[in-house]
Amino acid sequence: MARTGLTSQATDFSKWYNEVIIQSKLADYSPVKGCMVIRPHGYGLWERLQSELDAMIKETGHENAYFPLFIPESFFTKEAEHVEGFAPECAVVTHGGGKELEEKLMVRPTSETMIHSMVAKWINSYRDLPMLLNQWANVVRWEMRTRLFLRTTEFLWQEGHTAHATAEEAEEETLKILDMYASLAEDIMAVPVIKGKKTEKEKFAGARWTYCIEAMMKDGKALQAGTSHNLGQNFAKAFNIRFQSKSGSMEHVWQTSWGVSTRLIGALVMAHGDDKGLVLPPKMAPIQAVLVPIWKTDVQRTEVLQAVDKLTDGWKQRWRFKVDDREGYSPGWKFHEWELAGVPVRIELGPKDLEKQQAMLARRDTSEKAPVAWDDLTAEVERTLEAVQTDMLQSARERQEANTHSIDDYAEFKERLAKDNLFVQSHWCGNQDCEDQVQEETKATIACMPFESIRESGKCLVCGAASEERVVFAKSY
Amino acid sequence: MARTGLTSQATDFSKWYNEVIIQSKLADYSPVKGCMVIRPHGYGLWERLQSELDAMIKETGHENAYFPLFIPESFFTKEAEHVEGFAPECAVVTHGGGKELEEKLMVRPTSETMIHSMVAKWINSYRDLPMLLNQWANVVRWEMRTRLFLRTTEFLWQEGHTAHATAEEAEEETLKILDMYASLAEDIMAVPVIKGKKTEKEKFAGARWTYCIEAMMKDGKALQAGTSHNLGQNFAKAFNIRFQSKSGSMEHVWQTSWGVSTRLIGALVMAHGDDKGLVLPPKMAPIQAVLVPIWKTDVQRTEVLQAVDKLTDGWKQRWRFKVDDREGYSPGWKFHEWELAGVPVRIELGPKDLEKQQAMLARRDTSEKAPVAWDDLTAEVERTLEAVQTDMLQSARERQEANTHSIDDYAEFKERLAKDNLFVQSHWCGNQDCEDQVQEETKATIACMPFESIRESGKCLVCGAASEERVVFAKSY
Repeated sequence: MARTGLTSQATDFSKWYNEVIIQSKLADYSPVKGCMVIRPHGYGLWERLQSELDAMIKETGHENAYFPLFIPESFFTKEAEHVEGFAPECAVVTHGGGKELEEKLMVRPTSETMIHSMVAKWINSYRDLPMLLNQWANVVRWEMRTRLFLRTTEFLWQEGHTAHATAEEAEEETLKILDMYASLAEDIMAVPVIKGKKTEKEKFAGARWTYCIEAMMKDGKALQAGTSHNLGQNFAKAFNIRFQSKSGSMEHVWQTSWGVSTRLIGALVMAHGDDKGLVLPPKMAPIQAVLVPIWKTDVQRTEVLQAVDKLTDGWKQRWRFKVDDREGYSPGWKFHEWELAGVPVRIELGPKDLEKQQAMLARRDTSEKAPVAWDDLTAEVERTLEAVQTDMLQSARERQEANTHSIDDYAEFKERLAKDNLFVQSHWCGNQDCEDQVQEETKATIACMPFESIRESGKCLVCGAASEERVVFAKSY
Repeated sequence: MARTGLTSQATDFSKWYNEVIIQSKLADYSPVKGCMVIRPHGYGLWERLQSELDAMIKETGHENAYFPLFIPESFFTKEAEHVEGFAPECAVVTHGGGKELEEKLMVRPTSETMIHSMVAKWINSYRDLPMLLNQWANVVRWEMRTRLFLRTTEFLWQEGHTAHATAEEAEEETLKILDMYASLAEDIMAVPVIKGKKTEKEKFAGARWTYCIEAMMKDGKALQAGTSHNLGQNFAKAFNIRFQSKSGSMEHVWQTSWGVSTRLIGALVMAHGDDKGLVLPPKMAPIQAVLVPIWKTDVQRTEVLQAVDKLTDGWKQRWRFKVDDREGYSPGWKFHEWELAGVPVRIELGPKDLEKQQAMLARRDTSEKAPVAWDDLTAEVERTLEAVQTDMLQSARERQEANTHSIDDYAEFKERLAKDNLFVQSHWCGNQDCEDQVQEETKATIACMPFESIRESGKCLVCGAASEERVVFAKSY
């Protein structure tokens, strides 16, 4: 089996990204333009994300449901901003069962219109509120330029859709979900994020406003990792979703929607990977620890595998653990493969280790490797997995901080962004003309207006008008 | 809130079925013809099924992956029987991103062609075999007449796709999966099934042969609850899926595919439901036990809820358990609602029960209700849940046996089937002409050629030719 090797990140980050995904078997290109195949290793990551997030979604009182893939064209046009934003990206079904359809069906790019049309039927009284729904589904957006995981014509996601009696409750929900997404990113994926608000230009088509979490990739670019939209009463009015309040009056509901997608797997790859392959935090890794037994003779093989059985008794109940005792592959070949796959902890056990009653323990994230006495082995694997999870978040956080700078002078801003990718904290007047000009001249956009920003008086980077806080500019995926 | 009540099963089973699904909020009709919305209660059942089956799929060495929703038209035509079977049912995407597509895309009705085109790339050597893949996905088949859960234009399912080095291994896999499906139906859903083989007429388009599990619904009709196909080398040849064997020769792989769908929820409803609503076996129930506290005064309310807290301490860790302490609904209203929803065990606790240090415990499946002393309550709920699971399977099995008859005379066969729905064990010569004639004259088809059949010499029901075993005829969903 030929080893093709990876392009280094320093040489070409984008090439490295595509290669590491293909070689580590996370995904593959499909014969349908813009669509990818998620292979078992990649789908294992998605299942980890689903499992963690689904538990959070349910703990906060939401229920899963499933709505149709197809949306009648007429539904789609009921909210003006929404149709303008999404119609150009739609795949359209014109024929079914051998006949031309009377009304075209859009393959859902998002499900607000379908879900709101149903919710209008189910909500009658304040007793029916809040209605807290979530759906795990595939969606389709016809993209011109696609990238594995980051931007594919079809992708998998969850979309939450809620309805509330008051504007305050809807806003509270929107923020609660943003916190949930931030916790998923930081506590599970070890990816630090900035919580903030999108500008009017970047918000969801049809929302009052959009909150987001933004993460820095290893190349210094920003990746939008999750969004939570306050829809206000826009859709409630378009779909006539009303309820009888306690006092008897008929009122429109206040709504939210929110989603994260398989794009998060791209974020995971680019936030942690290195020139040897993926680097997975233990809470995300489909395999957390792998043991590679080493032998030359049949006698050694028997002795080593007997020791493995004894030493790893109960490990499969404790961790997602695998023994790689395949025949016909050298230990070095196996090490390389598990490094490429990003497994957090590797244990090696050979004849020399048997003599010393030890095993070698290697950490994927730091490449540290050291002998551990058998008596300490289980505890040391546990300790190391915890350390890897913590340290990966910490080192990603340090990298983000080191690559974030405050710049007040537009000439300097342009010069820096022409050379590097970084997060720039700058003043902005709030005017879209200035936002557009920066994008045109530097390719940087406003990643977000962060919640935790430096509140201070200053002048807009572009036009010099007064500004009270800095926003985060970055080149984005 | 108006109670509309259910049509009785005896009056109109089909009407009862639709009403019970809508009223218990399992699903709702959607604005897209033939598509339904799966509401939280229904999706909860699907999640239970997924969770149980996914564990079985993984325990037997399969891995989950995800393949594109769209299949290029040209792929679809590579296996002749397959395209003939599925092309007329396809939804077709002709436009994307505002432009007409160069090649039409079929929305997957099943994924053999897409998956096999990828597998051809991934399989090179005997070392890559067996390749054991599964996908959880939505599929679309343009149906003329649709029924909630049983036959919808879009439905959810899992589809397994495996490739093996030998015909024997593929056959072994096909049968192993059938056993897995039978276990899901009987041990989890409490629905007894007949395992067997489909006739040539009823097999999967493109398979060598198809195995199935068939269940009897309460109206005596058969429902195909899962299928497992031995594909032989049909697709391997169409998609050129070859591997280098140990001896160095290049050979085509042997393949299988298999699936169960949201149709199983329809089976669950029709196998157990009664005139009061759904009846769910505890292993499937999203809520296994519900406690309804009863009070008239505020003082009573406080006392009863305090007792509830004490008595049910730890119950949520033990079972999927809920206390229905909603204000503004009478106990009777709540009983009715939980009966409609099919919750297996209901506990009632009111002021009189406090005096006697007891609670009332009601079984949904038998409608038995009896007082239980507080000291025994936790153990009694546990015992009852186990009994309900076992007894529901047993009573469904008895119903099936009572409605299965051996008939040798075609006139009698026609007469019985004109009056009743039942399973008829009859001799059949193996000729499709006779199969067609029975269907035309009685609407009954061959549900399956059961593995455990009465091997005996006899004469074909229709033409009188020699036959060595009986097959099962039934009217089918």
